Amino acid sequence: MELIEYLEKVGNQVDRLIDRYFGDPVGELNKASAHLLTAGGKRLRPAVMMLAADAVRKGSSDDLMPAAIALELTHSFTLIHDDIMDGDEVRRGVPTVNKKWDEPTAILAGDVLYARAFAFICQALAMDAAKLRAVSMLAVTCEEICAGQHLDMAFEDRDDVSEEEYLEMVGKKTGALYAASTAMGGVLAGGSQPQVDALYRYGMNIGVAFQIQDDLIDLLASPERSGKDRASDIREGKQTLINIKAREHGFDLAPYRRRLDDAEIDDLIQQLTDNGVIGEVKATAEGLVTSAGKILAILKPSDEKDLLISIGTFFVERGY
Amino acid sequence: MELIEYLEKVGNQVDRLIDRYFGDPVGELNKASAHLLTAGGKRLRPAVMMLAADAVRKGSSDDLMPAAIALELTHSFTLIHDDIMDGDEVRRGVPTVNKKWDEPTAILAGDVLYARAFAFICQALAMDAAKLRAVSMLAVTCEEICAGQHLDMAFEDRDDVSEEEYLEMVGKKTGALYAASTAMGGVLAGGSQPQVDALYRYGMNIGVAFQIQDDLIDLLASPERSGKDRASDIREGKQTLINIKAREHGFDLAPYRRRLDDAEIDDLIQQLTDNGVIGEVKATAEGLVTSAGKILAILKPSDEKDLLISIGTFFVERGY
Repeated sequence: MELIEYLEKVGNQVDRLIDRYFGDPVGELNKASAHLLTAGGKRLRPAVMMLAADAVRKGSSDDLMPAAIALELTHSFTLIHDDIMDGDEVRRGVPTVNKKWDEPTAILAGDVLYARAFAFICQALAMDAAKLRAVSMLAVTCEEICAGQHLDMAFEDRDDVSEEEYLEMVGKKTGALYAASTAMGGVLAGGSQPQVDALYRYGMNIGVAFQIQDDLIDLLASPERSGKDRASDIREGKQTLINIKAREHGFDLAPYRRRLDDAEIDDLIQQLTDNGVIGEVKATAEGLVTSAGKILAILKPSDEKDLLISIGTFFVERGY
Repeated sequence: MELIEYLEKVGNQVDRLIDRYFGDPVGELNKASAHLLTAGGKRLRPAVMMLAADAVRKGSSDDLMPAAIALELTHSFTLIHDDIMDGDEVRRGVPTVNKKWDEPTAILAGDVLYARAFAFICQALAMDAAKLRAVSMLAVTCEEICAGQHLDMAFEDRDDVSEEEYLEMVGKKTGALYAASTAMGGVLAGGSQPQVDALYRYGMNIGVAFQIQDDLIDLLASPERSGKDRASDIREGKQTLINIKAREHGFDLAPYRRRLDDAEIDDLIQQLTDNGVIGEVKATAEGLVTSAGKILAILKPSDEKDLLISIGTFFVERGY
């Protein structure tokens, strides 16, 4: 099976389950919780988890669908809370929860999904001990995501963030949930500790690469494709790798920390392409994915392992 | 052992563990997470959980301390998020997290404790199946707490909330976590389903009574004793049982929805006492506790059962 075909299959499975549990919400709080979750999304974390599970023990992923949903809920909860903190108004082409409702409702809507994520893990068909390990992993991961978001915000007040600091932040904010996705897949499928460790490291690498690509998309893709404001990171002064590499090239993005029109953004992209910044950022993401593939040598060959490796490549090649 | 002595003993145990895990926080986010948790608190939920566990199987509570801590973390997380939504500035005699830091940090600080609560349950010494049930229970409870807080806020825009609606809201917002405390104690100690069900209902009853008493304390106690702004509920237009009973007596509290000076508050208390409102509210709380005691007939006699029953009485007699 081709990756795109696989992602579509899992995406549809996830969508159906999400529709079953969140498709007909009763009351404003449940509507707010379901809002972003049912507005689409690529369902990549569930797909990554299921591939990791099947790469460890073929056929195990069907039993683990509730845990895969838990990852999507966790992702959605962090987006809802992040949008409050960042004051964002559009996400996935729809108004954010804080915009459509208000901040208190958005805090609670995120908290509701947070709770349900843990409830869903408990419903997976797996050994109790494995499910408890998965609960612990998700808990540690949520804490890391918070630490990553906190660093991300702290970086906004600084103009001297190093590449190393950026990679640490992104590892927590985005890498950790992909790492948890692969590792939880391994744990719930009954993988050995070395397998689970390798899956964790693999997920971390491709997760960081994913975020770097996301930063590129924020700048390069049209709002119609990305579902977000264009160049919002630069407007908000986010310290992305683009920002850091630009500074290394003596190109200061601080003057662009304001609402930019389309012509200004196009001109900025041209400059960052000409001076090599865009190319270097892409190369960093690609390097992470290339080295990630080697980590999975511990898993025996299988179609699912191949798909898991190709998802890393997809992460840095996607345009939205 | 007397109840006060028992509460002091468990409170000290909980304080020691909290101090071990949260006493020396590194970084602003960990400081913000620990802030309210280490500022004191009566540690009533852990005590209730441990008494329930020992009432089911004597001596089991020592193994369950991590789960007791999980309840205190959950309580603290909900307070941090509630304080953002309510715009409160003082809690337990210290500035709230949103006041001392800012709203984004407070959102994240609550989210961190939320994660740690689930991580702590996994560390209890109990059967894996029981710990998974406890995880599910806590998840369902957190969702109920969110629904309760959402109702509570929605009630602020209404002046026609009925006693029944109030009791539903309080059951979710406060009762559910006490119900989870007693039920989780029962589950983790290996209790039967009828025992766990009875403990859940007992916890719910005394939890609702606790909140009614808390509403009375908000009005009646000095800020020095309660650690909160005095009469903050009336200032914010919260629909408490005091408010509802006053309306039944034709006494409208709406004109008091503003900052009140001490003389005005004293005068208000006198009027609400004279017209019987305070007495009726007290009687409602006491009635809940009296009927709660009968629910525990399913448990065999023990010192811990007696203490568990006396904690209900304590809830409605305490002055702060």
